[in-house]
This record gives sequence, structure tokens and C-alpha cells, in this order.
Amino acid sequence: MGSATQFLEIDQAFHFRRGRSIPGLTLAYETWGQLDAQKSNAVMILTGISPSAHAASNALDTTEGWWEPIIGHGKPIDTNQHFVVCINSLGSCKGSTGPDSLNPETGKPYRLDFPELTIWDIAAAAQRVLEHLGIEQLRAAVGPSMGGMSALAWLYQNPSGARHFLGVSSAASSEPFSIAIRSLQREAIVTDPHFHNGQYTAASWPQNGMRLARKLGMISYRSAGEWRKRFGRKEQAKYETELYGMNYKVESYLENAARKFVKQYDPCSYIYQSRAMDWFNVADGHQDLADALSSIQLVSARIIGVKSDILFPLHQQEELADAFAASGINSELVALPSIQGHDSFLVDYDRFKPAIASYFSEIMSGEKPVN
Amino acid sequence: MGSATQFLEIDQAFHFRRGRSIPGLTLAYETWGQLDAQKSNAVMILTGISPSAHAASNALDTTEGWWEPIIGHGKPIDTNQHFVVCINSLGSCKGSTGPDSLNPETGKPYRLDFPELTIWDIAAAAQRVLEHLGIEQLRAAVGPSMGGMSALAWLYQNPSGARHFLGVSSAASSEPFSIAIRSLQREAIVTDPHFHNGQYTAASWPQNGMRLARKLGMISYRSAGEWRKRFGRKEQAKYETELYGMNYKVESYLENAARKFVKQYDPCSYIYQSRAMDWFNVADGHQDLADALSSIQLVSARIIGVKSDILFPLHQQEELADAFAASGINSELVALPSIQGHDSFLVDYDRFKPAIASYFSEIMSGEKPVN
Repeated sequence: MGSATQFLEIDQAFHFRRGRSIPGLTLAYETWGQLDAQKSNAVMILTGISPSAHAASNALDTTEGWWEPIIGHGKPIDTNQHFVVCINSLGSCKGSTGPDSLNPETGKPYRLDFPELTIWDIAAAAQRVLEHLGIEQLRAAVGPSMGGMSALAWLYQNPSGARHFLGVSSAASSEPFSIAIRSLQREAIVTDPHFHNGQYTAASWPQNGMRLARKLGMISYRSAGEWRKRFGRKEQAKYETELYGMNYKVESYLENAARKFVKQYDPCSYIYQSRAMDWFNVADGHQDLADALSSIQLVSARIIGVKSDILFPLHQQEELADAFAASGINSELVALPSIQGHDSFLVDYDRFKPAIASYFSEIMSGEKPVN
Repeated sequence: MGSATQFLEIDQAFHFRRGRSIPGLTLAYETWGQLDAQKSNAVMILTGISPSAHAASNALDTTEGWWEPIIGHGKPIDTNQHFVVCINSLGSCKGSTGPDSLNPETGKPYRLDFPELTIWDIAAAAQRVLEHLGIEQLRAAVGPSMGGMSALAWLYQNPSGARHFLGVSSAASSEPFSIAIRSLQREAIVTDPHFHNGQYTAASWPQNGMRLARKLGMISYRSAGEWRKRFGRKEQAKYETELYGMNYKVESYLENAARKFVKQYDPCSYIYQSRAMDWFNVADGHQDLADALSSIQLVSARIIGVKSDILFPLHQQEELADAFAASGINSELVALPSIQGHDSFLVDYDRFKPAIASYFSEIMSGEKPVN
């Protein structure tokens, strides 16, 4: 199977918000559907910490994407109607430039020598892709999880850049509980003796740190209620491990998730994007969130969140919806009763498909030419 | 300052529920108040995973105990009225025999050669102390956190052993979310290269594993709501660390908690007690919890829990209170709105003092001799 990923190569220095720059960068993205003649039907999707730009299958790459049930012909984000572009975040290791990319000055991966990354930088890089595609105004900016933070930062930087905004299980800033979880994940990685201050190799990989980080990630991505139903106190010693006692099904589940992840993601990319989320507060320098969002000229905003989400809790979605409403934007909060926690948007499609479809229906009925 | 801790030395083999035995054991305990002539006024307190038997100060040891505001003259558990005995759990490293104790057969600490520990063993060991003190029936068995599990197991083993039961932020079994948290804590410890399969020394200590475990502990012991209020996004780089970015106040708080704990607790004791909690389900072998508790002959049970507790969630307290009620026991749930999570019983004394005091008042008014 081929790849549908396109690469934008930029031969200009990219300056990071917290200082320093890199001489150029690559941005990976994929598209679905056709951009109309007025370039007015584009929908940009920015992603969470780990997904690539391959959000859905297409003719060039029929493998399932990370949001397969949401994007495509006749799906909630209908590629018959919209030109969809999904951009791999700056700082990722899935095609766009990040800490794992080769530093042209040294010929070696940047690793910890990569400039400090912020959500604002991810947003600014995404804008380069839109400029390359000649898109001046999006029909909608969409972002789940960290992608919602990036989309918010992008809206702040491009106040009239989109007519609509869909935030999914995201937030306008990080709260201390989420910072604590991510801080501990990073600590597990950087204190792994194999981390070697970022000089790990495929043969000497901070495997244990990544395992612990991923398991803690899963604990924060799902919910106690889901696991109570799904695993209860069932036993299943699926993996032979050297650990003291790992016989519960929930332990096998975490072990499985860790084994799949450990080598699939670059440890420094993970650390950089994780810290970027902690640092993010769209209201920095403003008196409050509503003030920060007041220059953004959206027609509407839809904020979807989940009650069982402990990482991007529902009250943060409420704050975001309220702040948009305070600017006179047609803003609505949709609180879904999914039990799968933060990850619900990736698994509870029975709820997320209609919620997203109905927002795009409303957008399209509002955009209908008046007869 | 002297110690008020007493030690019961038992020169008989102690058989563990999951098999194996040790040739003898030591049990550390402290007492407050006077046992009356009928030995009818005793209150037993079993503890959470880390506290010692020093629950409160007394004449021999005036240092503050871990439940200082609760136990003493004129306090909620009033030592003018009750003879209070707090027993350090079997498996702990605070005086009672545990993995850190010397194995008389080898002259070295047991460590991973200690028999597998269950909550049932902790309960059976506690009973030895009561027998030694000549107490046949307690006025009340009290247990916060893991101590509530141990007290429940003890009631199961001694169905007419107490007239009243006070469970505080505890549970009748462990659910998968709590198992997952504890499993990850153990994994952090045993995968620390300095753990050496339990053969660590003071000079080569699994310091990093213990740090990570303690920080994850704090994340599970407190609550997002408390931290939102207390820390918000405040910055305070209190500690110089080698870690990538640790400038938030919540991170300094976790770092401080970790530094205090790392050398204060034996890693194997921690692992053994942690797993004992996972394994615990008082209803094992019964059709349900009510059936498991049906032989217990209490006059009353009071179950206090906290809405913000993610480790011993409130619905588990409800189940416990309901199960006692199903046996015709005067059982009542008190759900407190404390925001400090599982640890509320150690910090939110404004709520816990009156809740515990009123239960003991009710107990005493019920025990008043009829005129």
C-alpha cells in the first residue's frame, strides 16, 4: 500500500515562540475531497499527541485512519462536501519535523537540541500548509484533544481564518491534574537509564520509561467506569512478565497497550508535545478566556466533551463554549455521556458520529445559497 | 522522645492464606485510654498502607500521630471513653513483621522471599494482638483506606468480634482502576535497576522507582478539583532537577512528596501491601457482597466516603453501606463533599471530625445503661 501523505518542504527559518529557530522544516499532511473553485470548502483537522496525518483511508492509502468513521464519503465530515486536510503536528515523529528529525547542521537527530515547542508553534506551522494550498478561510477548524488546543491557537493567530470551529475533548489551557499526569510520564521517560539525555538508539531505547508513560497515559485516557464494566476483577495472565503479580485483565490490557506503543513513538517527540500542552493557555496575557477569544470572528463554535474525561474535563469544555458565547458567537456545548473517558472520541462512535454529523449539517444549511 | 509502641512477639508459625508460613512474628501497636474492667470499651484502628501504629500522641511519645485530630481526650474517638488500640499492619515496615524483617533462617531481610501477603493475613495478625490484650469483643472496629479492608476481613473472620464498624474511605474489594494505578506503581519500583530483584541496599536503593510510585500515589490520593484551586497554573521552580521542564507548582508539590517518601518506606513492604489490596474482595466465594457480610453481627455500621475519591470511589462506599443494611444492621452512608480526594480523611478535619464524633456519640448513647 502506498502512502497518501504529502510533504511541504519549507526552506525558510522557522522561529519558535520560546526562542531559537531551525533552518527549515517539513510538514506532513493528507487531504480528502476536492477544494472548490472559491477555495471555500476546506476543513482543517489538527491532531492529538500521537496520530499521524492519516486520519482516514483514501484511494492512495486504503489502510484505516485514526478517525476512519468520521471522515469520508457520506460520513460525518463528508468528503463529498468538504475538502479535508489533516496536518501532522510540528514536533511529531510522523512525517513533520520534530526532535527525531535530522538537524542539518549536525547530520544527527535534534533530540533535546530541538527548540522548545509550544502549541503556538504547531498552529503557526499548520498555517504554512494552508498558505501552500491557497486557503484563506476555512469552512471549519477541527481539533480533538491537543489538536483542539492547536486549532484554538491557530484561530487566535488567524482571527478570521475560519467560519466554524469544532473542539472535541479539548481545552483552552492545561490544569494541574493533567500537568501532573504528563509530568510524571516525562519523568518516567527521562529517568530511564536508556534515555541517555536524549542520545538513545534503536538498540538502547528507553523502553521501560515509555512503557510506564504509556500505561499512565491509558489510565488518564480511559475511565474507571469503563474498566469496571469491561474488566471488573477478571483475571487473565496474558503476558509473561518479570513483574511481581500481573494477573488481572486490566493489567494485561495495559501491558498490551504499552508493548504496541513503546517503539512506535519517538520519546523526545512525546516529551516535547506533552510539555507543549502543559504550557498552553490561550488566555495568557488576557484578563480571561472570553477576552482572549474576543477577536476571533467565527460564525459558530461547537464544543463536544465527555463527562468521564479526567484529562480534558467537561468543565473546561463549558468554559470554552461560554467564552465563545460571550463574544456573540453561536456557541454550543455538547456533553456526551460516554464512559470511555478522554478517548471516547476515538471509540464511542455511536455518540460521536451523530454529534459531529449534526454540527456539519447545521454548518451546511447555514451556508446554503439563499434562493 | 521515647516511643509508645509496644511489640507483641509470637513464637508460633504464622500461616499465610495464599500458602507458606513464617516461624514467628512481631506485631507493633499503640494504645490510648484505659481498658475497662469488662474489657468492653476497646476500639481497634487498622491503618492504610503507610502509617505506623502511632496514630496519635500520648505521654510516652508526644510527637503528632497520623490521625492526631481524631484520637485523644475530648476528640472524636475520645480516649476518656474508649481504650484505643492501633495495630501496624503485618507486612509493613513500621515495627510489625514484613518483607524488610530479618528472616531468622537466613539472617537477612525476607524481601521477595516473604510469603504472599493478603488483607486476610493482616486481619488475622491483628486478632493476635486483641487476644493478647484479652479483648473478646470490640466496641468498634475502625479502618480508613486499606485499614477498612483489613477491618472488614477481620469482621468476616470474627463475626461477633465488634458491636460497631466505622469504615472510612475504604472498600470491600478493589476495582480495576485502582488495580491499574497500583500495578503501575509496583512496575515503576521493580523495573528500577536498583531494585535488583529485591536485593537493594541503603546505598543502592530503587530511588527513582519509589519517586515515580509516590508521585502516582499522590495523583490518586488527591483530586483534580483540589489542585485546580490550590495550584492552578502557578509556577514555582522550587527544586533543581535534571528533568526536562518542572516549573509548575503542582510539580514542585509532587517532587516534595516524593523526596520525603523515597527512603522512609521499604519498597518490598510497599509492593506487598499494594498487591494485598488488589487481591482483596471480601465477597470472594459468595454470591454477592451482602451474602459475604450476612454472618457479621454488628449493631451498627457507619461508612464515610468522599465524592472526590478516585481510588476508593463513593459508589463502593454505597455498596458497602447497602450490603450491611441488607443484613438488618443499622447501616448509614455519610458522603462528604471534601475536595481533597482519598486523602480527605487525613486533611479535611473540618468535615471528618464531626462525622466521626457524631458516630461515636450515637454509639455511646446506644450503650448507655438503661435507668
